[in-house]
Amino acid sequence: MKIVTLLTDFGYNDHYVAAMKGVILSICPDAQIIDVSHGVPSFDIISASYVLKAAYKYFPEKTVHVVVVDPGVGTSRKAIAIETKRYFFVGPDNGVLIPAAMDDGISRVVEISGKYMQRQVSCTFHGRDIFAPAAAYIACGVRLEEIGKVLHSYVVPEFVEPEFIDEKVRAKIIYIDKFGNAATNVSNELVKRIGLKYGDKVKVEIKGRTVVLPFLPSFGYVGGGEGLLLINSEGYLELAVNLGSAAEKYGLNIGDEVLIYI
Amino acid sequence: MKIVTLLTDFGYNDHYVAAMKGVILSICPDAQIIDVSHGVPSFDIISASYVLKAAYKYFPEKTVHVVVVDPGVGTSRKAIAIETKRYFFVGPDNGVLIPAAMDDGISRVVEISGKYMQRQVSCTFHGRDIFAPAAAYIACGVRLEEIGKVLHSYVVPEFVEPEFIDEKVRAKIIYIDKFGNAATNVSNELVKRIGLKYGDKVKVEIKGRTVVLPFLPSFGYVGGGEGLLLINSEGYLELAVNLGSAAEKYGLNIGDEVLIYI
Amino acid sequence: MKIVTLLTDFGYNDHYVAAMKGVILSICPDAQIIDVSHGVPSFDIISASYVLKAAYKYFPEKTVHVVVVDPGVGTSRKAIAIETKRYFFVGPDNGVLIPAAMDDGISRVVEISGKYMQRQVSCTFHGRDIFAPAAAYIACGVRLEEIGKVLHSYVVPEFVEPEFIDEKVRAKIIYIDKFGNAATNVSNELVKRIGLKYGDKVKVEIKGRTVVLPFLPSFGYVGGGEGLLLINSEGYLELAVNLGSAAEKYGLNIGDEVLIYI
Repeated sequence: MKIVTLLTDFGYNDHYVAAMKGVILSICPDAQIIDVSHGVPSFDIISASYVLKAAYKYFPEKTVHVVVVDPGVGTSRKAIAIETKRYFFVGPDNGVLIPAAMDDGISRVVEISGKYMQRQVSCTFHGRDIFAPAAAYIACGVRLEEIGKVLHSYVVPEFVEPEFIDEKVRAKIIYIDKFGNAATNVSNELVKRIGLKYGDKVKVEIKGRTVVLPFLPSFGYVGGGEGLLLINSEGYLELAVNLGSAAEKYGLNIGDEVLIYI
Repeated sequence: MKIVTLLTDFGYNDHYVAAMKGVILSICPDAQIIDVSHGVPSFDIISASYVLKAAYKYFPEKTVHVVVVDPGVGTSRKAIAIETKRYFFVGPDNGVLIPAAMDDGISRVVEISGKYMQRQVSCTFHGRDIFAPAAAYIACGVRLEEIGKVLHSYVVPEFVEPEFIDEKVRAKIIYIDKFGNAATNVSNELVKRIGLKYGDKVKVEIKGRTVVLPFLPSFGYVGGGEGLLLINSEGYLELAVNLGSAAEKYGLNIGDEVLIYI
Repeated sequence: MKIVTLLTDFGYNDHYVAAMKGVILSICPDAQIIDVSHGVPSFDIISASYVLKAAYKYFPEKTVHVVVVDPGVGTSRKAIAIETKRYFFVGPDNGVLIPAAMDDGISRVVEISGKYMQRQVSCTFHGRDIFAPAAAYIACGVRLEEIGKVLHSYVVPEFVEPEFIDEKVRAKIIYIDKFGNAATNVSNELVKRIGLKYGDKVKVEIKGRTVVLPFLPSFGYVGGGEGLLLINSEGYLELAVNLGSAAEKYGLNIGDEVLIYI
């Protein structure tokens, strides 16, 4: 089994993703290509790394995960491939791969070099000319040592841990999904440490305004249109609205700060 | 051949669909996964069941069709698997699977239980933790009797048949596609019974306003921007506009009533 | 390897694409189906032929490329299949296949006829009833001579070459991608002939307004939000904005004329 997943901000209308798939199948004809998403917001490394971290671990071992969210294409940022405990990751050296790769355990990082690229590399489409070929060769068994020289430093994104201030958790909105569910950077473990229990009424301060939300297992525990806090399927505390959008109801955007307390 | 199709309201931007695919491939590595749609309106069971019914029958026998349009996730609604004459269906017990399954002929319905789920079931993402594993096991040959105990009752959606009132057909808009074509619940058979013939000028009363539309075989029989009635590719009478949107031109929404008469 | 690619304007919400895939897999069970795009603007033959030409050549030899952008469905326009030097193309005879097919070198064109269609052909969905079956049979080895009789004439779209007027290139916007990059019909070769060099300041007249843009290898050579001209990954001169949208910034639409000079 040779699975290659693709995660980009290319959208679904243009030829970019298909060109990458054609390149992969030309190099590794029996690869099975799975789309993770091509709809992360343009150039948004934080959203892309959240989506990758939420999806990567459900795939079989040896899956090659490719990410092309690449505001620095054509500049001097490096192209890298990572081997972790169970997977491979391929993409730009801008931090987008690192949260997922560190979660699995990084074994080595290499800089993708000459031999395993397209013969002509464009300045604007490294997805097709560098990342897709490297991923295809790795899927087909080329070892990471051959892909390029080992890197001992690479870009690690700053992950902002929630802070405690006067018994309040100062959290951040790190992802908003299609339904308007707004994930915070407060992990399941932290929720336990705070001692939050199902049924608790929790105060959430959003841009100066305070709302009181019940902490519950799932959407259906409140009426349609009502808000709640839950642990989402990735293990993060999330603001949600049953059959509605929390992002819309509470005016939330990625990066917003919220204060959470009982 | 082990085909699993996926139909959800998850959209194309998030990690939800990819996580389901990873789970399926981890359990059944040679499954071929085909997306039916992830763009049905959020929580819209009627649209989802229309799309499923329109697509399911073109797939090879034994295909496993998974639907996750699930406003009741995390509540007590059951998770079910259905065997029909030629296919399998997996999804929530909210009626979304039934129109397609009844169309093919239901052999048995079971409630998905313990053994064939993910070990930890989240409260908010049964697509990944219950439906994807069950579908993968069925695709790989696990028999329905093993998936769970037989159910003798399940949710059947109310299908509203068109009514006749004073020689008029009181119909309903049951689906609107990307082009703005608006399908009614008036079947091909009913159109024949009414005696409608190509070329007929048909009156359609929409929210108090009456328009006269020709009944014709296809779009190109009228000029660009002009309206018509046709039998759509699923066998339903449809309001359409050549090279334009009937939903926009006539202000139509899913669920709207229209009166049709000659 | 039996690859079939699909390029349509059906969008991602409806059942149309899935029905085509089901038909293909029912005829040719080991086909691998790859989506090129289902998001080209409705009925837009020019955009669709640009996307096809940009994607087709990266796929392995013998790939069957299907395009269903078909404003004339149900009228007398023909359904055709084309064999080129390395590929097959299937779609309506409205010109959409020709730029890619001519790029690869057309060997023969046939009109798809009776035997290799669905038994019942609807008037509105030839993608499912004519193009998908023909593509599946071709992928599975049916020779073009059997698909239908050879056509000696077919619709060739008018390609507007840029003109020179008083040392100015009168070009046209032929494609706008998701990021708002606006490709012109000025090819790499023409750029060389004009003598444009990286670093040149180029004047671009758009709807009476003139902007001065540097000609550079890639986005990152200018600051965020600043405009530039570059050769895009398909070899065309393109108006772009680093980390922004040129279409928005300069008010560009497909079909717009621009005058380019030094």
